[in-house]
Amino acid sequence: MAIRPLYDRVLIKRVAEEDRTKGGIIIPDSAKEKPVEGLVVAVGAGKPLKDGKIRPLDIKKGDRVLFNRYGGTEVKLAGEEHLILREDDVVAIVQ
Amino acid sequence: MAIRPLYDRVLIKRVAEEDRTKGGIIIPDSAKEKPVEGLVVAVGAGKPLKDGKIRPLDIKKGDRVLFNRYGGTEVKLAGEEHLILREDDVVAIVQ
Amino acid sequence: MAIRPLYDRVLIKRVAEEDRTKGGIIIPDSAKEKPVEGLVVAVGAGKPLKDGKIRPLDIKKGDRVLFNRYGGTEVKLAGEEHLILREDDVVAIVQ
Amino acid sequence: MAIRPLYDRVLIKRVAEEDRTKGGIIIPDSAKEKPVEGLVVAVGAGKPLKDGKIRPLDIKKGDRVLFNRYGGTEVKLAGEEHLILREDDVVAIVQ
Amino acid sequence: MAIRPLYDRVLIKRVAEEDRTKGGIIIPDSAKEKPVEGLVVAVGAGKPLKDGKIRPLDIKKGDRVLFNRYGGTEVKLAGEEHLILREDDVVAIVQ
Amino acid sequence: MAIRPLYDRVLIKRVAEEDRTKGGIIIPDSAKEKPVEGLVVAVGAGKPLKDGKIRPLDIKKGDRVLFNRYGGTEVKLAGEEHLILREDDVVAIVQ
Amino acid sequence: MAIRPLYDRVLIKRVAEEDRTKGGIIIPDSAKEKPVEGLVVAVGAGKPLKDGKIRPLDIKKGDRVLFNRYGGTEVKLAGEEHLILREDDVVAIVQ
Repeated sequence: MAIRPLYDRVLIKRVAEEDRTKGGIIIPDSAKEKPVEGLVVAVGAGKPLKDGKIRPLDIKKGDRVLFNRYGGTEVKLAGEEHLILREDDVVAIVQ
Repeated sequence: MAIRPLYDRVLIKRVAEEDRTKGGIIIPDSAKEKPVEGLVVAVGAGKPLKDGKIRPLDIKKGDRVLFNRYGGTEVKLAGEEHLILREDDVVAIVQ
Repeated sequence: MAIRPLYDRVLIKRVAEEDRTKGGIIIPDSAKEKPVEGLVVAVGAGKPLKDGKIRPLDIKKGDRVLFNRYGGTEVKLAGEEHLILREDDVVAIVQ
Repeated sequence: MAIRPLYDRVLIKRVAEEDRTKGGIIIPDSAKEKPVEGLVVAVGAGKPLKDGKIRPLDIKKGDRVLFNRYGGTEVKLAGEEHLILREDDVVAIVQ
Repeated sequence: MAIRPLYDRVLIKRVAEEDRTKGGIIIPDSAKEKPVEGLVVAVGAGKPLKDGKIRPLDIKKGDRVLFNRYGGTEVKLAGEEHLILREDDVVAIVQ
Repeated sequence: MAIRPLYDRVLIKRVAEEDRTKGGIIIPDSAKEKPVEGLVVAVGAGKPLKDGKIRPLDIKKGDRVLFNRYGGTEVKLAGEEHLILREDDVVAIVQ
Repeated sequence: MAIRPLYDRVLIKRVAEEDRTKGGIIIPDSAKEKPVEGLVVAVGAGKPLKDGKIRPLDIKKGDRVLFNRYGGTEVKLAGEEHLILREDDVVAIVQ
């Protein structure tokens, strides 16, 4: 099963373990979102603009990326967990 | 009864069982939305833009798609459950 | 009394019974909005755009439509319940 | 005292009694907003657009209109209750 | 001390007593906002548009206006209470 | 340490004492925001527009201004409290 | 591991200690956000505009900046805490 994300969405396979809040204690000063690392498996055609044109994404297939842990849609492909995110939820490319 | 979705809406027939949260336990780290698979039965003419033009949809009749489980409007056609969604609630095409 | 809806509003007469949630039990997995069927009695001149132009509606007088049950303004005409909705609350045309 | 509403606002004098929810019982299936009828006494010059132009209103002085009961600003003129509303809170013209 | 309001803000001196909700009883059917009357003492240069231009205000110095009681910033000038409001909080000019 | 505010932000030094709500009693009818007076120490290059251009600010270095007390970011410079605000939080220039 | 922030995001290394609310007491009149100082390590290509163009950022690599403490995504690089922020969360450049 091949997946083609729509518009500005990207399909990502996680490559990093999630850092979990140990013991569930809430610590306000470190409550910032920590990103998760992943490999871009497929990208959409681009973001639709107000005038109907499509702006291609900056992210390419094969990029290693950091993305926000919350948000996106989980999907299992060939037994492995993937995520479909909007490109805007990806914060950086790891080079 | 034939249905013509309006503008950027699409009519979808589910083809996948929904994964349910077993026992109703809430598990924060896996609370992401899981998509549901469906077959596109009909599509609207396109999304109206700010300047009054219509941008045709990327999704076509006959596409198999993944869409977010929440959102949309249920409608029963010939005894079968269908959904009318905005194209933006469809995250990917399955090829 | 004749009614002319303003801009992107439409006047609709219900033709379908509403499916009610029996006994008031909330069932999360089927909590999606179910549409109601209606007959379009009158339509507005169109939706005003950012540049001041008016985009004519896609819905015409005489169309049978599905619309979201919540939203809109009820009005009684000749003793019968009608609804004034924005065209965007109409999800599909029944053909 | 004469009132000139600003921009897309209109001055309306009520001509219909309000239907009140008898006894304050909340009935979910009929909780839709019911409009109130009024006579347009004065209208603003029009709605300001993004480019600085003004789009004239569709409503004219002397129109009988249906408007949503909630919203708007009450003002007493010559001992009678009037309302200043945005044109967008008026749903239809009664002909 | 002279005050020059910025952009689409106006400086207003109240000329009408506020009607107060006697005894704090909440009466739903008359909960609409009642305007307060004032005299325009100074106006800003205009509202900045998306393209960087400035649209001059419709309100002029010396106008008597009705404005919504809530919103705006109070400022005391020469011992008298004034208000700095956005022009959009002014609903009408009294002529 | 010199500070250059970014875009539509301005650096302000307070010159007026804040009026405090004595004893913490909440008085609804006078709950409007009271502005604080300050001196503009530095201004950003301007507000970025949708088309990528920058609209210069109306406020200049050396202006005495009234600004809303809530909002903005406090920063201590040479032992004195300053505020970094968006220009839109400044309501007027004192002349 | 090198990080390339996407679009209008910037990678920042903190250089200032955070001022903490001592003892957790909430003091309304000084509840304004205090900024944190940092060094810009990398910047994205720019902010995407409505028309598909990219507006380059004002912040450059090597700038010392003040940014709002809340918001952004923490990431550990070579054992040191960094932050990925949108440029709009940076309030000023320290010169």
